[in-house]
Amino acid sequence: MAIKDSAAVIGLGLIGGSIAKALKKMGIKVMGLDSDEQTLAMAKSEGIETHCFNTQGMAGETAIPDIFSHTGIIFLCVPVSFISSTVKLIANHVPRGAIITDTGSVKKVIVRDVEAVLPDGVSFVGGHPMAGSERSGFGWAREDMFYGAPYILTPTPGTDAEILWTMVKLVRDLGAKPIIMSPEEHDRVVAAVSHLPQIISTTLVNAVAEVHPEGSVMDLAGGGWRDTTRIAGSNAVMWKDILISNKDEILPLISAFKEQLSVLESAIKSSDEAVIKGRFQNAKAYKK
Amino acid sequence: MAIKDSAAVIGLGLIGGSIAKALKKMGIKVMGLDSDEQTLAMAKSEGIETHCFNTQGMAGETAIPDIFSHTGIIFLCVPVSFISSTVKLIANHVPRGAIITDTGSVKKVIVRDVEAVLPDGVSFVGGHPMAGSERSGFGWAREDMFYGAPYILTPTPGTDAEILWTMVKLVRDLGAKPIIMSPEEHDRVVAAVSHLPQIISTTLVNAVAEVHPEGSVMDLAGGGWRDTTRIAGSNAVMWKDILISNKDEILPLISAFKEQLSVLESAIKSSDEAVIKGRFQNAKAYKK
Repeated sequence: MAIKDSAAVIGLGLIGGSIAKALKKMGIKVMGLDSDEQTLAMAKSEGIETHCFNTQGMAGETAIPDIFSHTGIIFLCVPVSFISSTVKLIANHVPRGAIITDTGSVKKVIVRDVEAVLPDGVSFVGGHPMAGSERSGFGWAREDMFYGAPYILTPTPGTDAEILWTMVKLVRDLGAKPIIMSPEEHDRVVAAVSHLPQIISTTLVNAVAEVHPEGSVMDLAGGGWRDTTRIAGSNAVMWKDILISNKDEILPLISAFKEQLSVLESAIKSSDEAVIKGRFQNAKAYKK
Repeated sequence: MAIKDSAAVIGLGLIGGSIAKALKKMGIKVMGLDSDEQTLAMAKSEGIETHCFNTQGMAGETAIPDIFSHTGIIFLCVPVSFISSTVKLIANHVPRGAIITDTGSVKKVIVRDVEAVLPDGVSFVGGHPMAGSERSGFGWAREDMFYGAPYILTPTPGTDAEILWTMVKLVRDLGAKPIIMSPEEHDRVVAAVSHLPQIISTTLVNAVAEVHPEGSVMDLAGGGWRDTTRIAGSNAVMWKDILISNKDEILPLISAFKEQLSVLESAIKSSDEAVIKGRFQNAKAYKK
């Protein structure tokens, strides 16, 4: 069967739900799997064929061996720490020629672990759509979530060129901009533009919470506060996995941040106008 | 003359320009003063009566003694470090009964310095509209800039109740939400919701610039990066004034931030899932 005739999405949260909706819109038969009954009910009401699934396997009547027998592509949209164990669970029940892909925010560890358990004839291409929001859950999922967003694919030397090309086309069909890089390069770059901002935004809120525990300062918050803290306090379970998995890339960035903050702090302390201006101008120039 | 029949705005940047446009929309005769020829030309083309003005006084033909003789209210929208010197320059040429107000991002120092030079019969009420953007200049000014935004007024024990009430009504007419607090309270709160986010956002960009000087990582930036760094690198001259003027309130917040960041950094280093989750949950709870 053609890769795109029938797709499965495991994990119907914000990202998985958005992929399921977008695939359905494209006319692809979509099967959605999740462990949460309410999520499954919501997905079903949107015309998605649903099955209960948890990390122990299928909870419903249908066994794994049957369910994926006609599936051309499987999206794994579960937390980072469940991706390779989920592949292990399903890999031997996936038809030859099928593609498995994921949407995890780290790639090096995942690609390595998944490739180690993948049977012959089944392909894996790591993926990471740079979209989403501070919200989570199927209720916030949107079929246009990926429009115009970068969508990173991380093939390895062993990835079949035709399989990669299929993925590139599929990403384009989702409305996203496919970008190809190695799993290592992905982790390095994403630590800077996604993981560090998440840490900093969350820490900003925690610092203000420490100094102003009563919270009434929030009445005065304008657009600057709203934007810098929009992503603060995103899904805690998802983020602990990401930060721990990618700590090798994240920790040097935290060190660089602390250094830069100390430069600005000292300049404020000593009223050093030139250094303060310099730090603001440097940031402005880099953003351009 | 009634306070609101004729207004002057000194400094036609983003905020001053927006106030001038909004007052004009309200049917008030508005005089705009700035030192920049191009800014004055833009303001003139919007039907605002313009005069060249710099920190040495009027650069044009009209002398200060004449120009403010019919002005009921004067908005000072110049950088924080020029506010009290500008008041000194104009105060004796302002008619009795007139109100002077400013839009500076710090209040304690300004209110203290201005009250020291104010002649009898002229009132000063400190103001701070919590609006604006990372942009600067008259070209970005909008008459609806203040719609729905908090607009802080900082009277002192000596402020006349009727004068304050006039300001409250004017702020409402601008579409903003007047909030009254002491200059000290203003500085404490604004350090948290505005000054610290500015420092952190700018430092975030500088940290990534240090680790990725080539800048190509920006191709992958999604909404999280865009929002957390939107205000980074805002007007350097304006911000150095603000940060130095309000250092007493800002430095303890930077310390709290560094502490909170170290907690999260240690937890990532030691893969302490509970602490990471706790920090994310704490931020989420505070935002609510």
